[in-house]
Amino acid sequence: MAVYTQIGAEEMAALVNEFDVGELVSAKGIAEGVSNSNWLLETTGRDGSGARFILTMYEFRIELEDLPYFLSLLDHLAAKGCPVPRTIHDREGALFRRRGEKALALIEFLPGVSVSEPTVGQARAVGAALAQMHAASADFAGSRANGMGLAEWQRLFDECGPDSLASIDPELAGLVAEQMPKIAAGWPKGLPRAVIHADLFPDNVLMLGDRVTGLIDFYFACNDLMAYDVAVTHAAWCFDATGRNFSAELSQALLEGYESVRPLSAEERAALPLLAQGAAMRFTSSRAYDWLNTPADALVVRKDPMAFARRLQFYAANPEVFA
Amino acid sequence: MAVYTQIGAEEMAALVNEFDVGELVSAKGIAEGVSNSNWLLETTGRDGSGARFILTMYEFRIELEDLPYFLSLLDHLAAKGCPVPRTIHDREGALFRRRGEKALALIEFLPGVSVSEPTVGQARAVGAALAQMHAASADFAGSRANGMGLAEWQRLFDECGPDSLASIDPELAGLVAEQMPKIAAGWPKGLPRAVIHADLFPDNVLMLGDRVTGLIDFYFACNDLMAYDVAVTHAAWCFDATGRNFSAELSQALLEGYESVRPLSAEERAALPLLAQGAAMRFTSSRAYDWLNTPADALVVRKDPMAFARRLQFYAANPEVFA
Repeated sequence: MAVYTQIGAEEMAALVNEFDVGELVSAKGIAEGVSNSNWLLETTGRDGSGARFILTMYEFRIELEDLPYFLSLLDHLAAKGCPVPRTIHDREGALFRRRGEKALALIEFLPGVSVSEPTVGQARAVGAALAQMHAASADFAGSRANGMGLAEWQRLFDECGPDSLASIDPELAGLVAEQMPKIAAGWPKGLPRAVIHADLFPDNVLMLGDRVTGLIDFYFACNDLMAYDVAVTHAAWCFDATGRNFSAELSQALLEGYESVRPLSAEERAALPLLAQGAAMRFTSSRAYDWLNTPADALVVRKDPMAFARRLQFYAANPEVFA
Repeated sequence: MAVYTQIGAEEMAALVNEFDVGELVSAKGIAEGVSNSNWLLETTGRDGSGARFILTMYEFRIELEDLPYFLSLLDHLAAKGCPVPRTIHDREGALFRRRGEKALALIEFLPGVSVSEPTVGQARAVGAALAQMHAASADFAGSRANGMGLAEWQRLFDECGPDSLASIDPELAGLVAEQMPKIAAGWPKGLPRAVIHADLFPDNVLMLGDRVTGLIDFYFACNDLMAYDVAVTHAAWCFDATGRNFSAELSQALLEGYESVRPLSAEERAALPLLAQGAAMRFTSSRAYDWLNTPADALVVRKDPMAFARRLQFYAANPEVFA
């Protein structure tokens, strides 16, 4: 939620001139991105009628070797008609530019806002957009392993340690110890795979009314089970922020929307209760780690791990949600 | 440099509907403003062709009773042709809206970028824009005392205390003790007054090439000596960031630009060396206070008070700059 690096107007104008997008007219640092800095740029456009872009500077965490995967994925999906922003290539055709130790990419700006209280119509549209993305990725040549899979959740919990988990909530350590082995043992093999978004929270979807205008922030995208992506999106959209209140209407709409584009197989349906527990465990693990490792006075707002521990308990107790 | 308050998309859309500016299309929190939160909004516009605005939420420091002064000043100056953003009034004609303890104002978006290495042509244009603003404010009805005058500098230095000032730099406490009485004793009376910006750093000017497209961030504006505003702007534009390197070319261009619109009187010219020392002292005082009262790990970058202490020494030693 910050701009970590200052880029002077003169350097920004020179940078924009490395792309065929017209002259720089405006540049505003935007308060998005935890591991990168972002600017909303306006230029005169190629034809003088104005154009807008997001400039992203990759500062931390994301390995430069993964950037071609993320950025060419955007191009691939946009070319297939998915509502994702295109990567703007520079005059030499490059997907990104280097700036010292960092990297810079120019990405199409898309209209739309991120809803905080989704409606049934919005949940349906997001389900359909997710399925469209899965289908469109079938012939994408890139491949990337899921860096936030089961082994990583376990590693994050181990780094926290049971005492620290208990300091977050007395029930948390026991829940993890009980559920992690069950999820690992039951994890399905052989379900259909594709490029998955793996982090499709409302924050990462731009909408105008019931229409999805943008799927954004693909920096967890990887090749993995499509049904797991459905489970992540379900966990992200069908509860209130506390994880205490499940919405059967949003759940039904999301799944219907998905299946309107890509029907789930019987095996995928059967696996969803466990995959959803896995999805809830994944965000419990990263939030618990961040909770314990974020200074209390940091400007970053810590997100409550228990909001996902509660989802985990809900999914374990209510497999019929996916029946 | 942060967005302190989250506003959900649904609330933002409802808020935009309180103004006659079309429907909300996009909202991005922008990393500007130390004491307020800002969003860059895009709407469909009144005629459907699109429009952009800055939404500002006043969070701290600025007293609500001063808001009508700041916001109606923008309207007054814009109506006179100054490059300042207009305040968008809501459907009931109000300049701002309340949201609990906070206030929200919608302000016109202006193109342009803030330069970090001004050219002679840019300094001349800024001087002219400052004079234009002073002239245009002559019949502005509002009045506001300068809350950052000599008494406030002294109060800030007193709160720091000489030992803490010495911890910033061994010379600082002595410089303040020596110069503050001289500046106070010599402060001119009877020079012409107007509404002054009082903080016209390059950050607060939007430019396209040599053209000033926006003077922004009027939250220190007040009724005071126009020549003091010239001195503040001079201190802000005619040195490098360290305060070690003065540019005679930028100085000459800034003053020529100002006088191309509003010639300085002989009394104003004669007062400028001391007013410039005052301007340098003003930023030395606030930076010293912030330096000592900003946690070292805060995301806000502390600005070196010595960069203005050096300007103070320069102005004391080189009065001929304003001859």
